[in-house]
Amino acid sequence: MKKVAIGIDIGGTNTVLGLVDQEGHVLTRHAIPTETHPDYKIYMNLLTGAIRNLIDTGGKNLEIAGIGVGAPNGNYYNGTIEFAPNLKFKGIVPVVDVLKESFDYPFIILTNDANAAAIGEMIYGGAKGMRDFIMITLGTGVGSGIVVNGEMVYGHDGFAGEIGHTIVDPNGRDCGCGRQGCLETYTSAPGIKRTVFELLSQMIEPSILREVSYEKLSAKMIDEAARKGDVIALEAFEYTGEILGLKLADAVAHTSPEAIFLFGGLAQAGELIFEPTRRYMEEMMLNIYKNKVKLLPSELPPGDAAILGASALVWKEMG
Amino acid sequence: MKKVAIGIDIGGTNTVLGLVDQEGHVLTRHAIPTETHPDYKIYMNLLTGAIRNLIDTGGKNLEIAGIGVGAPNGNYYNGTIEFAPNLKFKGIVPVVDVLKESFDYPFIILTNDANAAAIGEMIYGGAKGMRDFIMITLGTGVGSGIVVNGEMVYGHDGFAGEIGHTIVDPNGRDCGCGRQGCLETYTSAPGIKRTVFELLSQMIEPSILREVSYEKLSAKMIDEAARKGDVIALEAFEYTGEILGLKLADAVAHTSPEAIFLFGGLAQAGELIFEPTRRYMEEMMLNIYKNKVKLLPSELPPGDAAILGASALVWKEMG
Repeated sequence: MKKVAIGIDIGGTNTVLGLVDQEGHVLTRHAIPTETHPDYKIYMNLLTGAIRNLIDTGGKNLEIAGIGVGAPNGNYYNGTIEFAPNLKFKGIVPVVDVLKESFDYPFIILTNDANAAAIGEMIYGGAKGMRDFIMITLGTGVGSGIVVNGEMVYGHDGFAGEIGHTIVDPNGRDCGCGRQGCLETYTSAPGIKRTVFELLSQMIEPSILREVSYEKLSAKMIDEAARKGDVIALEAFEYTGEILGLKLADAVAHTSPEAIFLFGGLAQAGELIFEPTRRYMEEMMLNIYKNKVKLLPSELPPGDAAILGASALVWKEMG
Repeated sequence: MKKVAIGIDIGGTNTVLGLVDQEGHVLTRHAIPTETHPDYKIYMNLLTGAIRNLIDTGGKNLEIAGIGVGAPNGNYYNGTIEFAPNLKFKGIVPVVDVLKESFDYPFIILTNDANAAAIGEMIYGGAKGMRDFIMITLGTGVGSGIVVNGEMVYGHDGFAGEIGHTIVDPNGRDCGCGRQGCLETYTSAPGIKRTVFELLSQMIEPSILREVSYEKLSAKMIDEAARKGDVIALEAFEYTGEILGLKLADAVAHTSPEAIFLFGGLAQAGELIFEPTRRYMEEMMLNIYKNKVKLLPSELPPGDAAILGASALVWKEMG
């Protein structure tokens, strides 16, 4: 019987789940709304039902090896989601324990979404065979997953790998985490939007972005403006690359990876973001690291990446 | 027969070597000048002779398990010293290969001095039993060794763990590495000296340090002045702790260690440096990490730490 893993990605709005084979093909997929009710039990009932439904519809003649879950503030050691600011659940959600009550697969594992993306890249994507690399997710926030000696870095408490919350400037932009100047406030999708507004205030060049309100502006609009040669939009990518390059150079000085992968909405901008990031990263790096570290786009298909990453946890755990 | 390891620390001025048992007792020790001649072969001959001499004088009735070497810019994978700015040797010195020509112990290993200090702390000191910790050495430079999942982080190229060369301010102080604003330019012994001179220019308070030239000022004098209540000296420790705390908070966001150990001259200042560093580190850390990470002094005796760290490489390799 063909082996598959169940991959579940718990996002702020929706939870997506699917059956994934060892080559990274998503055979069946489902989605449910992530419960807006603060009581996680209602959501976990819904999720358990959705998993059963997934198995019933797509699981015939397949052997299910386990369940992998990716979630914001997911803790690998405890199998819990802990105080996730973007989810409605209060406190600690014991996802793995609840799933174990209903399913007795040998592997039921949870980690945070960026770590799941890193493991997805390692199992199915561009990091195959790499023992030391970093995954950076540039989306609504900035997440990261660090792999050292072929193993995910979870740290003492299961929360390692928050490069998005390293500090660019202690007196910098307000961050949702309550501090100031985190990398995330500059290099996420909202971050580049903030940069555009800063540049609109500083520069006097005309720009099509001057016609758009803060509420309406999106990272995609900045991308499109830059491709049309808009000076403000181009400068916003330059500045974003400078800040990201600086902090990636710091990250290299910690774990000296073979490659850094960029994933998520902002990474879709391609060379608009890769070129300045690579240039500043090389400029800011200590000599011994120069021209060694590859800056690469994730090879996971954006639409399925979350499910793939979560499912990869199972194959990784099986060794 | 009692087992011992030979620990060798290659410093800019002297090379120290000793026979160390598994409990961390240095049974015999020697020192030779580190060759000032650019040809490493002359030095390696001297070193090989010193090792033989060490074994002849102290090695009777002892079984030698191997040789561990700590050196600036030491590369674990290659067993080489590569382009060390503080040593006179040009290019690449194949230390391990040369030692293997003369000695056939099962383990002959080299790494950089800060990594050796970390392994020393893990085998003999305060990091016994810890699987995730960071060693920071505050000396002439700032070195670091990062341990994750019980293993040293060497990275893809063997040069991981250069937290001293993460960047505090891209427009900051000139660093010996050719860049600007590295942590090392603020929190090393010369770094706090530079801070005192900056403060002497900014502040108008009287200070006994106003009577000392840059050449004559030492970290020890700043320490002594601070203990007498000198305002400039106290402010220098406060500022040093602020910068160190900021970058340690960043380091925590990478590997989430159980503890960070401080070692070296500046760490000898005790609470003068630990108190502000701890305070700022806690202030700058992401919520999920707060009040979890211990900031501790190294438990290795300063005089023997270099030999101990180097010898610990052998026990670590033996598992």
